[in-house]
Amino acid sequence: MARIVQKFGGTSVGDIERIKNVARIVKRQVDGGDQVTVVVSAMSGVTNDLVAKVRAIAPMHDAREYDTVVATGEQVTTGLVALALHEAGVAARSWQAWQIPFRTDDAHGRARILGIDTARLEERLAEGQVPVVAGFQGIGTDGRITTLGRGGSDITAVALAAALRADRCDIYTDVDGVYTADPRIVARARKLDKITFEEMLELASQGAKVLHTRSVELAMNLGVRLQVLSAFTGAPGTMVVDEDEIVEQHVVSGIAYSRDEAKITVVRLADRPGVAAKLFGPLAEAGINVDMIVQGGSEDGAHADMTFTVGKADLLPALKALEVRKKDLGYHSVVHDSSVVKVSVIGVGMRSHAGVAAKMFSALAERGINIQAISTSEIKISVLLSEEYTELALRTLHTAYGLDAA
Amino acid sequence: MARIVQKFGGTSVGDIERIKNVARIVKRQVDGGDQVTVVVSAMSGVTNDLVAKVRAIAPMHDAREYDTVVATGEQVTTGLVALALHEAGVAARSWQAWQIPFRTDDAHGRARILGIDTARLEERLAEGQVPVVAGFQGIGTDGRITTLGRGGSDITAVALAAALRADRCDIYTDVDGVYTADPRIVARARKLDKITFEEMLELASQGAKVLHTRSVELAMNLGVRLQVLSAFTGAPGTMVVDEDEIVEQHVVSGIAYSRDEAKITVVRLADRPGVAAKLFGPLAEAGINVDMIVQGGSEDGAHADMTFTVGKADLLPALKALEVRKKDLGYHSVVHDSSVVKVSVIGVGMRSHAGVAAKMFSALAERGINIQAISTSEIKISVLLSEEYTELALRTLHTAYGLDAA
Repeated sequence: MARIVQKFGGTSVGDIERIKNVARIVKRQVDGGDQVTVVVSAMSGVTNDLVAKVRAIAPMHDAREYDTVVATGEQVTTGLVALALHEAGVAARSWQAWQIPFRTDDAHGRARILGIDTARLEERLAEGQVPVVAGFQGIGTDGRITTLGRGGSDITAVALAAALRADRCDIYTDVDGVYTADPRIVARARKLDKITFEEMLELASQGAKVLHTRSVELAMNLGVRLQVLSAFTGAPGTMVVDEDEIVEQHVVSGIAYSRDEAKITVVRLADRPGVAAKLFGPLAEAGINVDMIVQGGSEDGAHADMTFTVGKADLLPALKALEVRKKDLGYHSVVHDSSVVKVSVIGVGMRSHAGVAAKMFSALAERGINIQAISTSEIKISVLLSEEYTELALRTLHTAYGLDAA
Repeated sequence: MARIVQKFGGTSVGDIERIKNVARIVKRQVDGGDQVTVVVSAMSGVTNDLVAKVRAIAPMHDAREYDTVVATGEQVTTGLVALALHEAGVAARSWQAWQIPFRTDDAHGRARILGIDTARLEERLAEGQVPVVAGFQGIGTDGRITTLGRGGSDITAVALAAALRADRCDIYTDVDGVYTADPRIVARARKLDKITFEEMLELASQGAKVLHTRSVELAMNLGVRLQVLSAFTGAPGTMVVDEDEIVEQHVVSGIAYSRDEAKITVVRLADRPGVAAKLFGPLAEAGINVDMIVQGGSEDGAHADMTFTVGKADLLPALKALEVRKKDLGYHSVVHDSSVVKVSVIGVGMRSHAGVAAKMFSALAERGINIQAISTSEIKISVLLSEEYTELALRTLHTAYGLDAA
């Protein structure tokens, strides 16, 4: 007997038929002799509809009331899934965060987990009942409903899996696992059987949408074995595991891309000590994350061009922050470009293999693709390219690193 | 300063604009110096949609999960109304039953109130905050969400008004008060400024839809002054008060009708002692309420025809119950008719005035309307008529009792 947490996302519970399908998946696991706890998201579209109602009434809404309204989406799903399980002959009961309780701090809209009292759930599990837990929500220290922010239901599932000492946390979604690259772009992309936490984390932060960074990080820190799999195909998915569980190591495991980047170049910045701090300080203060940074000298040696990227949503605030400091920073002008893509190759094998970056640069150069910026970490190399090269670059690199399906 | 509970029904909070309108009504009351607690229903249509989802999954649904799902409708409204109040500059906070707590027994779907802990609400009221409370729901002794059944949000409002010792409970709805008759049928119907609890109770049980019997009964028992008024017109409504508050007494205060009746006649029933008990016993066991009863003799003196009415939804079960007892009861046949209407005249003045019934019978006879059955209480006379006379009978009686507007 294993203890499993199964999490079903919005599309997996998107309508009545799909909720019945979820009940069949859970029943199969229960019939196999496992102890199962289910975590559910709101039916797809429901949260957006609730958020739209909140915004129509109060554009600058009180986060506590926002949480009270949007948390109802998951509550509805818990009841419906429990009913579908009853129909399938499986004992089940819905659980809201306040009933468990699943305790968080009071940072409404982006609450942090303080602790989960599993005693009541353990009692039900021992009786053979399947708890159906509302994802995304918590109960604050002030006794009010909180929500966990983006990727919230995955976070609920992972935290619950850790608290219940589950053998595995299965994240059911609308894709059947983690791929070497986006299969909509790279036809020869392969599903990975296994991937390490660190790689998954880099993939998620570099643009792969299958799991949210925060839930992967949490799983890694709490030692929760994750599986990403499809609620529709029944095929085995991708296991996210510790590095030592990976037997056959590829140098590169996957390639991610993100179009959510904008490039800013500050032209002819006075090149004196401390100028970088002066430039990036105000951006940090404005809550703007700067990603790739390239500093280039200028002909006179007294000035430098500084190029960096920010998220597309941060472009205008960043330009504004630079504009108000123009006199102080003493630059000539600022140019920007939103038609860029960040392409990243990721793999823990890079640590022990040289020449990974060189292969990337030469493969792109052979195709005539110009690299506008580079950033690296221990297990990742990212390059900034002109957006129109996205597909060509992904396919080229996929082949170059030997990832193509046979 | 008065303490007021304001309850807003589904149509009053039916869309974003109407929710903003509710905030204006509440603000006006608060600005007038009153302490206000708000009780809200689900936005119109929402509960039906949730019930449809439940039924699509599980026709014979578990009542606990049903309650978990449908209670979300009110939860959404509490958050949205609180937000609208913030926008209007009124301090407010949403409250679910479990947060108060508003305690009930565990009879899911039709829970009875056990008690309301008002300490937390009192605290907020003292701070000048408006609590926005979810109607229709409670928290059971098992820590699960319950619902109160039909008319549930009115019941919440009345119970809360009693617990908070409020000066008045205002029920905002889509009509501007209680009328002498349904104004859609009787053009000269008048809005009543005041009506007694007992009359209101009879009107509600005899088909008037403005308030549900259970909430009127509760208000009468707990001594809560009720007002029924429109959320849209701003006009004063109808006060439901104790009899001693009514200065100018009419013999008849209002006329109600109900098309939810079906007539059953058991033909040539053996007329021996105990036969009525034998006839109605099985119906009572099947949970069927029998309303008007007429016993007629037959020519031979040894048999009787028994006519009675049941709710339309109970017609088939009643016929079935009679069928299985046919041999035992020894009747000749059963005939039934659903094309009937029950018309009732109601007024506490009947107690001290004779001839009220006689006036009813002669007024109807003058119009050639045949009376099929009669039942009376201390303050009510009901007659069963063929359905096609509904409008004629209502208008005739409205004029006969001097209720027509000038």
